Amino acid sequence: MTPRPSVEPVPAASVAAFDHECDVLVVGFGCAGAAAAYEAATAGADVLVLERAGGPGGSSAMSGGELYLGGGTAIQRACGFEDDPDNMFAYLTAALGPHADEEKLRLYCEGGVEHFEWFRARGVPFNESFFDAPSWMPPTTDGLMWLGENAWPYTTVARPVPRGHRPAVESWGGRLLMEKLVEAARAAGAACHADTRATNLVVGGDGRVAGVVARRYGEQVTYRARRGVVLTTGGFVDNEEMLADHAPVLLGHGKVSDGLDDGGGIRMATALGAATRRMGEVEIAMTALPAMLVRGMLVNGLGRRFINEDVYPGLFSVAAVRHQPGPYWAIIDEEGYENIPARDLWGVRPVFVAETLAELEESLGVPPGALEDTVAVYNRHAERGEDPYFHKDPKWLRPLKGPFAAADPRLGFGMGDRDSAGKGTGAAGFTLGGLRTTVDGEVLNQSARPIPGLYAAGRASSGIHGEGYVSGTSLGDGTFFGRRAGRAVAKEA
Amino acid sequence: MTPRPSVEPVPAASVAAFDHECDVLVVGFGCAGAAAAYEAATAGADVLVLERAGGPGGSSAMSGGELYLGGGTAIQRACGFEDDPDNMFAYLTAALGPHADEEKLRLYCEGGVEHFEWFRARGVPFNESFFDAPSWMPPTTDGLMWLGENAWPYTTVARPVPRGHRPAVESWGGRLLMEKLVEAARAAGAACHADTRATNLVVGGDGRVAGVVARRYGEQVTYRARRGVVLTTGGFVDNEEMLADHAPVLLGHGKVSDGLDDGGGIRMATALGAATRRMGEVEIAMTALPAMLVRGMLVNGLGRRFINEDVYPGLFSVAAVRHQPGPYWAIIDEEGYENIPARDLWGVRPVFVAETLAELEESLGVPPGALEDTVAVYNRHAERGEDPYFHKDPKWLRPLKGPFAAADPRLGFGMGDRDSAGKGTGAAGFTLGGLRTTVDGEVLNQSARPIPGLYAAGRASSGIHGEGYVSGTSLGDGTFFGRRAGRAVAKEA
Repeated sequence: MTPRPSVEPVPAASVAAFDHECDVLVVGFGCAGAAAAYEAATAGADVLVLERAGGPGGSSAMSGGELYLGGGTAIQRACGFEDDPDNMFAYLTAALGPHADEEKLRLYCEGGVEHFEWFRARGVPFNESFFDAPSWMPPTTDGLMWLGENAWPYTTVARPVPRGHRPAVESWGGRLLMEKLVEAARAAGAACHADTRATNLVVGGDGRVAGVVARRYGEQVTYRARRGVVLTTGGFVDNEEMLADHAPVLLGHGKVSDGLDDGGGIRMATALGAATRRMGEVEIAMTALPAMLVRGMLVNGLGRRFINEDVYPGLFSVAAVRHQPGPYWAIIDEEGYENIPARDLWGVRPVFVAETLAELEESLGVPPGALEDTVAVYNRHAERGEDPYFHKDPKWLRPLKGPFAAADPRLGFGMGDRDSAGKGTGAAGFTLGGLRTTVDGEVLNQSARPIPGLYAAGRASSGIHGEGYVSGTSLGDGTFFGRRAGRAVAKEA
Repeated sequence: MTPRPSVEPVPAASVAAFDHECDVLVVGFGCAGAAAAYEAATAGADVLVLERAGGPGGSSAMSGGELYLGGGTAIQRACGFEDDPDNMFAYLTAALGPHADEEKLRLYCEGGVEHFEWFRARGVPFNESFFDAPSWMPPTTDGLMWLGENAWPYTTVARPVPRGHRPAVESWGGRLLMEKLVEAARAAGAACHADTRATNLVVGGDGRVAGVVARRYGEQVTYRARRGVVLTTGGFVDNEEMLADHAPVLLGHGKVSDGLDDGGGIRMATALGAATRRMGEVEIAMTALPAMLVRGMLVNGLGRRFINEDVYPGLFSVAAVRHQPGPYWAIIDEEGYENIPARDLWGVRPVFVAETLAELEESLGVPPGALEDTVAVYNRHAERGEDPYFHKDPKWLRPLKGPFAAADPRLGFGMGDRDSAGKGTGAAGFTLGGLRTTVDGEVLNQSARPIPGLYAAGRASSGIHGEGYVSGTSLGDGTFFGRRAGRAVAKEA
């Protein structure tokens, strides 16, 4: 094991004079950092944000920009959907659980409408229109979409209501979202030092976090934070050693990040004795086309189905990569293929086409007879409009007949996943585990007590996720609990 | 979140006078603690072992006593098996991997023969005889057994050689094993304070671990360790909050432990900034009878097979509980049932018996037609002596025909699993993740540098396990790296 550059805390007494001072120091200018900086500055604190990249945005700016919000937002109402916090809570408990943080989840659901209005008031535009088809991301500017609420088993525990809120841009919306949030933080008075990477926390003799040591253009710079430090440094998908230690399931897959999610904030805080939670949980996105899967089937390396293909794509991706032997294949027949809307847009190209399933089995290397058995069982039930194994919505059920085609998610679909499209494993993800925090972002130590002066939000912390993930919940909880952390730290003496 | 009793480090300067002093303080008297204490005392150190229970033994004494050892031990040779460290390494890399610690695993395989002789020299008796049938634990005193080496896919990466070494006692051997190791540590000069629970590490101004604070009969007691502290406190399966934070897959299942594996050592060290590794990895044992499964099949809650039933039972248990929808069922026909050896010994009693699979499907609540489909595919291939899906050994393959029976692992089989037999989920386990250590047991901080004076071994540390587990590897790596830690700490100034 090679010793890494030190992330150990630095005693305040060893810092002769701080180069910079502020009330609240936010480390990382992604969505959580922007939200925390906005609220702290609005509450009257002198706020400084450090960002190690050349400018703000972080991984948030590279995301699709979906926000998982509900409970009865203006868009939901305009599109004819009735929602309430309990119904939202029931869905998220099932989809993000089991074992999600119930207190955080409850607050998040109760605050959904207010949080949506906060985005609108910051200038993020949303269209009051609804996209009603399976997709990772609609090829439209519709403001509302399903994020798995309309699929089994979630339909059995909560009334299906769409909660995917999307900024009014075609395709990736993270850039616009971050422009508005950064603008808001700056307008509220927050300053930013870019190209500045925090390396160590500075701790007073009383155990209180008093600032950070940072590197800027190769020089050491010290920052004093009179009220506290908020770590919004992101997760650790870009740190191979941390992945090997905590989330090896992501090793070898693509990374959904800006390339700087190296877990620095998590390590600085754990070096001081901070507790972590769920360091092994991850988001995984497979580059398979949902509109193709619902019309055919998703099979594993044994040629067997394992999930209802109309579930939220993040959930079938995790089900595949975490729990099924690969490789994974989308199998479809001619009629289904012809019916995929906008398939040229996504660049859907089957890898293998065959008149019979026996031929296809040979091409894919699945056990002989496997696809024949799988399709025979599927068809037998589909004729009656049933899917007793996985409960795909009857509207997608239809006996499949040759010729057949197989598409390989490993080849990507040009969906804009910068890292894995066209190469790699066809899956990419990021980490969900991180520092253990209270609902106000206070970082807890191993005795479950807040470390004075230290806050965290976003993927540097463990948020509302248990063992599941749905798009929009990371931008969602990052901004929601980032705001709470910003308000709480601003109140410190 | 309720604050817990503090596990935060205590400054040495705040301890007016230590109640006790020694060279090496070992915390926890299970197998790793006994091994560390023996070696440190043999190297001339003044050794004291703290044990929070009324006497030594820990969870190790409640175990089966299997030791995963090989590379060409005397028993292996006497039973006619040729083994070598590379072959052992190839198997364990596959069975404990992926992503096991290669350096630890390599040393463990190279040291297998010497480590076996060390147990014999400490008076642990082993018979030079071989038990050649699928079982969690042989109903004999044979000294050697298979631990999964003879099953696919392991047969494709390593020459199959049995490496399960068992003390010469009928059924559970952990008690005898621990008697001998404790006796050896005491004979070497190690003293023990029982009923003494370490609560905090004591740390000098130079950052060196100088001892511990402990509780004994409600009183606080302080211990100074001149050379270092070795944490051998076990895992955290008995700490529900830590399970929820790090290994929620075990929540609700039984616990394989002495009831005191509360992660205390891990928390004391992480409070000081120690790094952890693989906190989510677990051992899981399902109370299904291997001798029954190989003759029939193991199916999930959808009535589908998912693994070759002749694999090591720890591996089918993990495959089920981590990756398959439950409940799980052992399905067998009359001929297979009649051929189970010693089935009365294990108390095998089918829960459902039926003439047809359709009846059985209804009883089990699996999708209609599911067992018929599963058995039809199984039989079609079994007639040709093949299992193209899961590669069970042809010697177990035979078309199944009615009447059929189903057994429910949730009901237990009276196998001696104290916690879950006859009730619960049918699965029980313990944690494998813990402190990040070097091969000499030095505990590393978040910058990958050793914390001076602090060592760990056994389940308080992350050992040779990646994402898999095989019986005997926990007693195995606990004693192997416990010994190395004992030798290393004895050398400190």
